[in-house]
Amino acid sequence: MENVRDLSSTEVRELIRKQKIIGPTAGMATGYTQANLVIFKKEHAFDFLLFCQRNPKPCPLLDVTEPGSFVPKKLSNKADIRTDLPKYRIFQDGVFTEEVNEITDYWEDDMVAFLLGCSFTFEAPLLENEIPVRHIEENCNVPMFKTNIPCEKAGIFEGPTVVSMRPMTPEDAIRATQITSRFPSVHGAPIHLGDPSLIGISDISKPDFGNFVTINEGEIPVFWACGVTPQAVAMESKPSIMISHAPGCMFISDVKDETLSVI
Amino acid sequence: MENVRDLSSTEVRELIRKQKIIGPTAGMATGYTQANLVIFKKEHAFDFLLFCQRNPKPCPLLDVTEPGSFVPKKLSNKADIRTDLPKYRIFQDGVFTEEVNEITDYWEDDMVAFLLGCSFTFEAPLLENEIPVRHIEENCNVPMFKTNIPCEKAGIFEGPTVVSMRPMTPEDAIRATQITSRFPSVHGAPIHLGDPSLIGISDISKPDFGNFVTINEGEIPVFWACGVTPQAVAMESKPSIMISHAPGCMFISDVKDETLSVI
Repeated sequence: MENVRDLSSTEVRELIRKQKIIGPTAGMATGYTQANLVIFKKEHAFDFLLFCQRNPKPCPLLDVTEPGSFVPKKLSNKADIRTDLPKYRIFQDGVFTEEVNEITDYWEDDMVAFLLGCSFTFEAPLLENEIPVRHIEENCNVPMFKTNIPCEKAGIFEGPTVVSMRPMTPEDAIRATQITSRFPSVHGAPIHLGDPSLIGISDISKPDFGNFVTINEGEIPVFWACGVTPQAVAMESKPSIMISHAPGCMFISDVKDETLSVI
Repeated sequence: MENVRDLSSTEVRELIRKQKIIGPTAGMATGYTQANLVIFKKEHAFDFLLFCQRNPKPCPLLDVTEPGSFVPKKLSNKADIRTDLPKYRIFQDGVFTEEVNEITDYWEDDMVAFLLGCSFTFEAPLLENEIPVRHIEENCNVPMFKTNIPCEKAGIFEGPTVVSMRPMTPEDAIRATQITSRFPSVHGAPIHLGDPSLIGISDISKPDFGNFVTINEGEIPVFWACGVTPQAVAMESKPSIMISHAPGCMFISDVKDETLSVI
């Protein structure tokens, strides 16, 4: 699938829609923004929208569909959110029940889809700045941790902030702060660096989600608010139905990463 | 009222609550962020929240209250949105009906208050960078214009983007772009500069709102998305009731302007 890197977003979505791609999308359609997906019925949409507005670092909204519409117009007016991701997860009353390759049968006419920024967008400029990204080097998932930093509650939605961790030298941490600050709509600047216990992480070698990665001598852990937060919070709030992307199987938009920078 | 400049946000709100201040808040409690206010009943709140999410440049949300709550917790957990602004305007079915100094009698337990960023926040760093701000020099309201740039529709809310205009030299326009880019939550970078006709403004000497200001030889008009947009759009959408601040009579928050910068 190496050549998928050079395809356009439209071309990759076409392959996904035909279920020729049914796995993780990392590295596909280079330069195009990938997004997290969460879908609720209208009854929870206001609370969730408010939750995202109140917690923009873990929940940076890129697009919200009109109730009943499966077209994420801001990210791609040619896409269909029901078929254009490789893999979805269905949660009923907060319990993961099924993994599917399209959700046409689950779609209801009062559903609202939320598309949230993803760290893939800021990892590209980190790499271009020669800042090593350990989980990419080690070919595994980024390590993620639940913290003791509470999100601002909104309606039924509340819970702790989840962070992703990338180890790097202090010098690289400073440069990474500058780079990611330019991208507030994909989590922005780090929310912590150094001592993990200060944000309630007792063992840095045991992530709550994703994989452990090597922390070299002279490196510090750097923590960014993570797009897993809204899913984790939503699961705990047990809405009757919630649909999300499967881990790593993101929505590939027609928006270019660089257009998300604020300066 | 010159000394009001040096009071804290809490002290000024106290004077406002006692109706010792019933006029415009420009220049009061220097360094504290001031905000636009729009209030709707819950039935329109989702649509309006979605409208703001889709149009972040004219509608940069700083805080949204829980339905029925009059405490804008993110901006000040000691404030009461019903009494802490000097002057409010009531709109019924899209028609301006009354101007009042507090809205306790109008408050209903399903109302949601939206607080939006205001250009006061970015004018301070413009002045600190020795960029002249003409309407401040001429002691009048900033000139504002309806453009031909449509906002993204959301539910009942749709209409054109309103812009504010500040004339400056091209050199200052470049520096002003850098400065305001740091503040995406108070309209961010300009959306146009130069030829007004390109965004549907036929006569730069006849603003739709506010006052005409002098444009000197060698200056170009620079246009920022304006917080009047959501009010103008909401009025056209004729919700049964809408309450806003009266022009220039803003909510003074406990948040410092500088904390809104992204870099």
